[in-house]
Amino acid sequence: MNTPIKQDFSEIKIPPIDEAACQAVEVRHSQLTKPPGSLGQLESLAVELAGIQGRDRPAVQRKAVIVAAADHGVAADGTSAYPQEVTTQMVLNFLHGGAAINVLSRHADARVVVVDMGVATDLDEHPSLYRRKVAYGTQNMRQGPAMTEAQARQALRAGWEVIETEARQGLDVIAVGEMGIGNTTASAAIVAALTGLSPEAVTGRGTGVDDQGLQRKIAVISEALATNQPNPQHPLDVLSKVGGLEIAGLVGIILGAAASRIAVLIDGFIASTAALLAVAFNPAVKPYLLATHQSVEIGHRVILNELGLKPLFDLGLRLGEGSGAALAFHLLEAAVRILNEMATFAEAGVSGKKT
Amino acid sequence: MNTPIKQDFSEIKIPPIDEAACQAVEVRHSQLTKPPGSLGQLESLAVELAGIQGRDRPAVQRKAVIVAAADHGVAADGTSAYPQEVTTQMVLNFLHGGAAINVLSRHADARVVVVDMGVATDLDEHPSLYRRKVAYGTQNMRQGPAMTEAQARQALRAGWEVIETEARQGLDVIAVGEMGIGNTTASAAIVAALTGLSPEAVTGRGTGVDDQGLQRKIAVISEALATNQPNPQHPLDVLSKVGGLEIAGLVGIILGAAASRIAVLIDGFIASTAALLAVAFNPAVKPYLLATHQSVEIGHRVILNELGLKPLFDLGLRLGEGSGAALAFHLLEAAVRILNEMATFAEAGVSGKKT
Repeated sequence: MNTPIKQDFSEIKIPPIDEAACQAVEVRHSQLTKPPGSLGQLESLAVELAGIQGRDRPAVQRKAVIVAAADHGVAADGTSAYPQEVTTQMVLNFLHGGAAINVLSRHADARVVVVDMGVATDLDEHPSLYRRKVAYGTQNMRQGPAMTEAQARQALRAGWEVIETEARQGLDVIAVGEMGIGNTTASAAIVAALTGLSPEAVTGRGTGVDDQGLQRKIAVISEALATNQPNPQHPLDVLSKVGGLEIAGLVGIILGAAASRIAVLIDGFIASTAALLAVAFNPAVKPYLLATHQSVEIGHRVILNELGLKPLFDLGLRLGEGSGAALAFHLLEAAVRILNEMATFAEAGVSGKKT
Repeated sequence: MNTPIKQDFSEIKIPPIDEAACQAVEVRHSQLTKPPGSLGQLESLAVELAGIQGRDRPAVQRKAVIVAAADHGVAADGTSAYPQEVTTQMVLNFLHGGAAINVLSRHADARVVVVDMGVATDLDEHPSLYRRKVAYGTQNMRQGPAMTEAQARQALRAGWEVIETEARQGLDVIAVGEMGIGNTTASAAIVAALTGLSPEAVTGRGTGVDDQGLQRKIAVISEALATNQPNPQHPLDVLSKVGGLEIAGLVGIILGAAASRIAVLIDGFIASTAALLAVAFNPAVKPYLLATHQSVEIGHRVILNELGLKPLFDLGLRLGEGSGAALAFHLLEAAVRILNEMATFAEAGVSGKKT
């Protein structure tokens, strides 16, 4: 039995990868003045991007970092090293341009867009803010479902509409990030539910809880799973019972991006949890996902393995916000510039490999 | 007994790291709106750079990629997948702006400087070319020393003078790269000589030799080591007997950069071999070395372990030229911008960690 939203999202049209564009890039790579394959993942990135965009010469001009934010009822159980008010405070920091994601997005020449999916306070209008609040935070998943299925559906659709609006302004590639005190707790619960792994195997220290805090966090996740019994075959059931509103928003954003042939740079643990859910809703989204960094959070490695994705770098990041994904724009641009700007063996008069 | 050059380079003055500047950066990091340590290596990069430059707010404005080129007598033994003429052809490609390193340097807003340390042909003058040819390539190390100690000394000094000239034009950080058909063979021989490891343990496929080519390459290296018996205690002995002129030039460049408090982004296997030699000449150079990428070449991992350096990314690169190092400028700039542009907890009104 499919839930209505599962039907919705498994039936949406996500175009297949353009194999002809991929092949054209491979041919071009073989003509450039370098040993075949010697640029490693810079080459495969260009191939993937060509397939996503359906163009022999993919573009990385128009870039956005989309940061979804929401609060979590489970934060009341003390699973985070920071108080809940930090969610709102950091959203305001994003809008004022003072957070790490703002700095890294400016560095990448990408715009930052913030989506309030469920922050616990009212936020004023701002040109960089989408106000799509579904609730003033989720309910405490330790005691019952974090949200209703209707709320999860509303959040998914809100994310989808955000990316549609952004795409109309012109968009080649996005990075997805998040803010929400308590959201590594929700993410670990989702990953445990979807994969069947124990909470211990997927739960890390988030923003930095100590040993005691980590044990409490694991206990809370175990209790939430026992209370809610999320069905791993039904992503909407998992999302609504032990998820978060910003995670739901990201799932909608990711699915919507793929439907519009927009490449998605996924960030760390929480954004990757949303990617894992998006694939559960509709496997056709998978080739649109580009892994960026390997986070410190142990559950992140589990997700990347599950999705068969290899991250581009491991800098020991554990900040979220989309910070790791924003750093990857530079590599994507490098991959495309290699394609567009390098001389061929014929142009440069360079001898090929010995036969 | 120290050789003269060992004395020269072990006695040159390389300033110690500025610990006060490092501490100032650590204090600043603790005030910025993010969990402590959550930006991982972006944080440690900023600390290292501050210590190198001796400034609380290090600079990454003035950037150069210095590519040293030379030919190798051992190439006659067929240890490379490409013919020797490719060294000259690629140097011309660098000067015309069509190689991967040109594209990646433009992307990083860094200038490219090429140094002819010993290319087998005569090269015309060019504004981006230092003509410092010591010989028309090395001798075949399988049959005897690749160069004389006098030639190695000349190449070391030439590299030193190049970086001094570049530094006078203003320089915050450099990336070092190389071009030379046959130079992974020389590098593997150097690393085997310095570490005592077997040629098998440090020899890879370079630009892409097949299984048979790899076995031939290993046999040639073994023979070169047996013929020359380089003394692992004497870096000049190793360098002159089984090294390369571009590798010697890079050693001089690296030592000279450290003496001028310029940070050095080291590239893949060959540039890292030069870094390993530089440390053997003068251990005070070590904190000036920043590892960038993990190359496919197996010997590269050995060197990074030996130097205790952790690379920033592993993209499966094996091109050389400084290509991996050039990609790291972006991360270095990100690290510095985080320091300069992020809001503090006080400025943004964000609550700190729970106590």
